[in-house]
Amino acid sequence: MSKLPSIKPLENVSLVDKVEARLLKFIKENNLKAGDSVPKEMEFAESLGVSRTVVREAFLRLRTLGIIESKKHRGMIITNPDIMNNFERMLDPTLLGSDTLKNLFELRLILEMGMADFLFQHKTEKDMQELEEIVTLEEETSYNKNAFSLDKEIAFHGKLYEMSKNDILKKFQDLLLPVFEYVHLNDPNLNDYEYSSGQFVTHRMLMDNLKVGTPDTFRVAMHRHLEPHFDKIFNKKIK
Amino acid sequence: MSKLPSIKPLENVSLVDKVEARLLKFIKENNLKAGDSVPKEMEFAESLGVSRTVVREAFLRLRTLGIIESKKHRGMIITNPDIMNNFERMLDPTLLGSDTLKNLFELRLILEMGMADFLFQHKTEKDMQELEEIVTLEEETSYNKNAFSLDKEIAFHGKLYEMSKNDILKKFQDLLLPVFEYVHLNDPNLNDYEYSSGQFVTHRMLMDNLKVGTPDTFRVAMHRHLEPHFDKIFNKKIK
Repeated sequence: MSKLPSIKPLENVSLVDKVEARLLKFIKENNLKAGDSVPKEMEFAESLGVSRTVVREAFLRLRTLGIIESKKHRGMIITNPDIMNNFERMLDPTLLGSDTLKNLFELRLILEMGMADFLFQHKTEKDMQELEEIVTLEEETSYNKNAFSLDKEIAFHGKLYEMSKNDILKKFQDLLLPVFEYVHLNDPNLNDYEYSSGQFVTHRMLMDNLKVGTPDTFRVAMHRHLEPHFDKIFNKKIK
Repeated sequence: MSKLPSIKPLENVSLVDKVEARLLKFIKENNLKAGDSVPKEMEFAESLGVSRTVVREAFLRLRTLGIIESKKHRGMIITNPDIMNNFERMLDPTLLGSDTLKNLFELRLILEMGMADFLFQHKTEKDMQELEEIVTLEEETSYNKNAFSLDKEIAFHGKLYEMSKNDILKKFQDLLLPVFEYVHLNDPNLNDYEYSSGQFVTHRMLMDNLKVGTPDTFRVAMHRHLEPHFDKIFNKKIK
């Protein structure tokens, strides 16, 4: 382990970026897995011909990303990075640029169109009861049923993410607020949207579809429900 | 700026984790945006009653995550974190646990079911030509058209991600390899899969659907194409 045979010395400049990339490459090429030990700072410093300070900073980065951790008496070992935790730390809405928000909003539409099979597969009695409560509360407190209400949107759609039983999607719930706010800020007149024809698909209708429909019927209903958002994203008939 | 009024001293233990959380909270509460300056290490150290070393390490983490960066003559400023770049650094397949791979595989199915509207909206002549080339090459080099070939799957489905014109989905292309390998490793007999009834939907049929169909017809075709994977995930009729 102490010769690091698959890693070659850097040319000259010892940027932490380069060393970090080398460390990641080393882990990959040596097929290191969670629990495996990582060679010591000093060995990397010698092999790469850079100072220990630089290697230490690169190690610190990998620790920050949760790729390695220090264990007593064992030095540094590889871990399974908690990608969702890291994702969360970065996702303060005030820090996200408008391009990222637009991408996330599109992702939201894609996920909600695509998650139907998982909802039908994993739905439980308890889930459906909670969804019923969310929809009933919404109806009791809404004067205008077509009106866009941020907190009610998040309650209903957030519950769907949770019902997918997929950890990545569940984390996406935390993103719902900034993503919904993006809609609100950019299109305050969403309530004036006129559907191309026929009836609006409400949260209750989506819920009933989830009770007695199929993934195919649910996708059609969801697309109808999301129509104003799709049209907005695609710049169609925005008033 | 030097009094940090909205941030209270920590009780006693000065863990870097706590300081990092405080820094993130400070950024959020003060509604700091990309380009805004961050108070100096020393000011935080004094306000929080911890050593500068601890604050420096917490700052380093935020730099690693791309939340702050140092500018000449300006000290630390807030940046728009490049969430996709960070995501990428963590996503070495050898580092991912099997739970994460399963979640990512499910996410793949959800994204490909959900991206139809974006494919129809953004497809270009050039895209369709490239897709045609991918499909033709695949047909010319395949003896058994139903056989699962890792590189051809990635070429075709990767192109679809690219055609979505969504940066987050494009990055997901990079994840395709480990995610497809996950399928392969866990179900080497995928080629023996028997469709419930009727015909297999090939890549060419999906492409033709993208040419002359609608998002709705494409979703039905894609679901059929992905049927073996859905059945595998849901533990249905696996041989």
